[in-house]
Amino acid sequence: MTRHMKWWGWGDEAVSFDHHDKPALAPFVKQAIGIDLDAPPLPLIDLNALSIPRPSLPDHFADVLRAAVGPEHVHTTPLERIVHAYGKSLRDLVRVRSNDLGRIPDVVVYPASEAEVATVLSAALETDAVLIPFGGGTNIVGSLESAADEHRPVVSLDLARMDRVRSIDAASGLAVIAAGALGPDIETQLHAQGFTLGHFPDSFTHSTLGGWIATRSSGMQSDLYGDIAQITKAVRVVTPRGTLVTRSVPASSTGPSVREMVLGSEGRLGVITEATVQVHRLPAQRKILGYFFPDWDRGIAAMTAIAASDAAPSVTRVSDPNETGFSLATRKAGSAVDRVTSRLLRAYLQRAKRFDLSALCLSFIGFEGSPEHVKRQRSLVGSIVSAHGGVCVGSSPGTLYDQKKFDTPYIRDYLLDRGAFADVSETATTWSNLRPLYDAVTAAANTAFAEVGVHGYLMCHLAHSYHSGACLYFTFAFRPGDDGAPLTQYDTVKHAIQQAFIDAGGTLSHHHAVGREHAEWLADDLSAPGVEFIAALFEGVDPGRNLNPGAIIGSDRSPEVTPSPAPGT
Amino acid sequence: MTRHMKWWGWGDEAVSFDHHDKPALAPFVKQAIGIDLDAPPLPLIDLNALSIPRPSLPDHFADVLRAAVGPEHVHTTPLERIVHAYGKSLRDLVRVRSNDLGRIPDVVVYPASEAEVATVLSAALETDAVLIPFGGGTNIVGSLESAADEHRPVVSLDLARMDRVRSIDAASGLAVIAAGALGPDIETQLHAQGFTLGHFPDSFTHSTLGGWIATRSSGMQSDLYGDIAQITKAVRVVTPRGTLVTRSVPASSTGPSVREMVLGSEGRLGVITEATVQVHRLPAQRKILGYFFPDWDRGIAAMTAIAASDAAPSVTRVSDPNETGFSLATRKAGSAVDRVTSRLLRAYLQRAKRFDLSALCLSFIGFEGSPEHVKRQRSLVGSIVSAHGGVCVGSSPGTLYDQKKFDTPYIRDYLLDRGAFADVSETATTWSNLRPLYDAVTAAANTAFAEVGVHGYLMCHLAHSYHSGACLYFTFAFRPGDDGAPLTQYDTVKHAIQQAFIDAGGTLSHHHAVGREHAEWLADDLSAPGVEFIAALFEGVDPGRNLNPGAIIGSDRSPEVTPSPAPGT
Repeated sequence: MTRHMKWWGWGDEAVSFDHHDKPALAPFVKQAIGIDLDAPPLPLIDLNALSIPRPSLPDHFADVLRAAVGPEHVHTTPLERIVHAYGKSLRDLVRVRSNDLGRIPDVVVYPASEAEVATVLSAALETDAVLIPFGGGTNIVGSLESAADEHRPVVSLDLARMDRVRSIDAASGLAVIAAGALGPDIETQLHAQGFTLGHFPDSFTHSTLGGWIATRSSGMQSDLYGDIAQITKAVRVVTPRGTLVTRSVPASSTGPSVREMVLGSEGRLGVITEATVQVHRLPAQRKILGYFFPDWDRGIAAMTAIAASDAAPSVTRVSDPNETGFSLATRKAGSAVDRVTSRLLRAYLQRAKRFDLSALCLSFIGFEGSPEHVKRQRSLVGSIVSAHGGVCVGSSPGTLYDQKKFDTPYIRDYLLDRGAFADVSETATTWSNLRPLYDAVTAAANTAFAEVGVHGYLMCHLAHSYHSGACLYFTFAFRPGDDGAPLTQYDTVKHAIQQAFIDAGGTLSHHHAVGREHAEWLADDLSAPGVEFIAALFEGVDPGRNLNPGAIIGSDRSPEVTPSPAPGT
Repeated sequence: MTRHMKWWGWGDEAVSFDHHDKPALAPFVKQAIGIDLDAPPLPLIDLNALSIPRPSLPDHFADVLRAAVGPEHVHTTPLERIVHAYGKSLRDLVRVRSNDLGRIPDVVVYPASEAEVATVLSAALETDAVLIPFGGGTNIVGSLESAADEHRPVVSLDLARMDRVRSIDAASGLAVIAAGALGPDIETQLHAQGFTLGHFPDSFTHSTLGGWIATRSSGMQSDLYGDIAQITKAVRVVTPRGTLVTRSVPASSTGPSVREMVLGSEGRLGVITEATVQVHRLPAQRKILGYFFPDWDRGIAAMTAIAASDAAPSVTRVSDPNETGFSLATRKAGSAVDRVTSRLLRAYLQRAKRFDLSALCLSFIGFEGSPEHVKRQRSLVGSIVSAHGGVCVGSSPGTLYDQKKFDTPYIRDYLLDRGAFADVSETATTWSNLRPLYDAVTAAANTAFAEVGVHGYLMCHLAHSYHSGACLYFTFAFRPGDDGAPLTQYDTVKHAIQQAFIDAGGTLSHHHAVGREHAEWLADDLSAPGVEFIAALFEGVDPGRNLNPGAIIGSDRSPEVTPSPAPGT
């Protein structure tokens, strides 16, 4: 009925990655993590072989749900329940493929309107059921699953039927959009009227507006368009206290921002049904140019200088040498002209610029606006790049990157099909702390690889520049060894990287959220009183813990916030 | 010991407004609101004639406070208690000048460090006292006063001794600044190292960083530097749950933003002691140019177009015809050359451009950055201004505006000294709703003036442009009539304007906060569940209501949030 991703992996069933047209990739992967891409994939468990418990759904509650949204929009089939059980993290895929389904939802409900959402929430509170709002299901930090010992009925509330751009206020650059709309739904509807949202997270093709808001998402063009926190100007949320409606005003001093309380709330406060978001006229021109820097330090320094300058690019991104190597290895076999150009460029880089090719860092910088604006931005950025020893390599690599930017999760699955674990961890920190943090993470990951006894690969890029800092996005991969459960090995590496973020002054996540995966670092990140602030909000709004309990703040917390008499110093 | 503003009015005792060098002002004021500026001022009540109740301060508590900060930093003198009793709204000045002091604080405490703040808060909680954090005391919405029937000891905690820029991270454009630092303290310390904060609210000379954060302040250059909500990257807050410390990261997806919970919290969650804020290199060039538009609609349309363009000015501001008339009336008697230039310009505007001088709208637009950047921005903006029938009148009016921008409160007091009430109300709304909202406010104010039976004057400017809208800043003035108490007449007008904001789709305040003055509109602005969210936070963090109770959410709320079983739709 509605679109679903593969139950065992990312994306459309009809789409998968293939390495055969990328001649450099198999040798690269073989050397990096010891996986043979030409070997046949591992067998996949059959859907019918999964152990699906019978749904625990009181008859009366099921009747109320069917009456609320129509019986054809209430599902208890194994497939529906499985695709709503988890998000799409490496851990999620490993578990579902090994028949470790956890506490899957008892029922999946598809409301068509805010009124239906309110009726379902009301019924869930009445019955003391758990309700987990579900957008595209792309979350990779465990925001969508129930506690293993949850004894109450669990409802997954899928917003897929609420997918319309409802109105556009062209003069104000605002659109009212239903929360269940997927990225492509939104852009298609906006493009028809000459607008864009400008929000392109890696999950774009399969994630929703409501999901972006609930997790404080950020897109690749955030430098120009802002993170979803800036893009979202007003929200409508069905909560246990009634329907929250904030006003669409550009700024306000009405106490602590309620809109900001909803951003990042991961379903703990209610169900986001609609948002008013900033939209922009489609730019007259849009360019993403490729650059090479001689090394990582100079790449970081150039991004730092661009952020402090009068330039305003739409995208800033630079990969470390390891990620640059990976990117170059994923190039398709090109035409003869391409190959010659590429050879000439490498020769130029190596001789004229005396680049050490193993230290090379690939960068993409984007520009949007009128042709004059783009030209001036390119010139401002070009001067800064040159001053840091970088060279522009034109628009072909940028165009290719732009076309392929949403493919990475398919590559992750392709590796998993062949026995390799690949995952991501990202953080943000100040410009002055970027390199120390990067070094700390690198050291921590390498120590963890050694501890686990695997041949691991770590790579990173800097993206999402702000005035005071940027995001560092790490990807790590390895083939689990025979010592210990594969997920335990994964946990060791993932844990080491996250702990390094915290120890070295980063945040636990720049845009992937907290979920259950990152919850253990929340107090380190926000300090204990910060967690108390969030807990006070959640417990005041949802005292029965019916809304996605366990996300952000673990369900092992004591039911009441206990006052601490003396403030610390 | 520490600087205080006049107990009866705004600003330094040594400074006051004088109209005698502004020949057009007295006739203007006479015509607008029937006040004779040449008449002698009304007599002012003597400080010693005020009825000051004895402080209600248990001995043990006083001893603990003296031990915490040193006896010389604990004050119970009438002057100290009076200057900490109110902010500086028109209502505050009318009350203090008429010996209506309300529930003034029992003691004023000046801590020198976060540790001392923590000790004071701890003692206040132990004793069940009320604690009201105090920055510069410039608030105009009643954020600083106690409930009339408050029976607990009331402590005003003045952060004046915590005024240092503690460190600057030049590479990241960040500074760590103590919360009690005044605007000029901050800029002087930053300038010495080549930086600026770029935050210049009208209260700049007498307001503090902590106060700006606690009220979600906005400065005149917010178009470029952002509101204080964007400028503030991390906070330290002494709370009943311990000391909250958020990380200085450019962005994060760590659940609902705790930093945003502190912004606008008006002392309800704790005492802000320090913040990490964005700072910028002093721009190579800074220009504020004056423009005239033929009428208000074209002025608004030009600002709308600038916001949608590639241009990035630092200041955008346009006055309606009434405010333009007032601005022109406050010009000093100039040199012969000035007068000739001015006459020639008026002749040009009237003949060549066929401007109706009574519809004329004065505008200021600012530019900052490298000379090339400023030149390009001026050119981009100039084209848009021309396309909307506007003309540039050079840098002299802008320079004058820039010099005089902090003088307005002194004019307000000068009028009050002569029996006239003048006050401000400001809001924000979308570009498409600016003119309808303006018309609704104008109609509401005029109806209220008629109802009260006074000859009132209302004027407005648009400022603080965002992608989706802007702030409308209204000033109203009248001489209270003989029917009814003067403050009741004031309330009628102020209430009508605020109600029009809400009815016409604005927010109750863009940057003056909620306090006690705007609290009655909070549920209209945020919806009832929005108020419940904020209440849940306050009550969870400060269940004893020791921290500035009554600000933002009235103290007449029931002590517990009662769950509403069924969500509305």
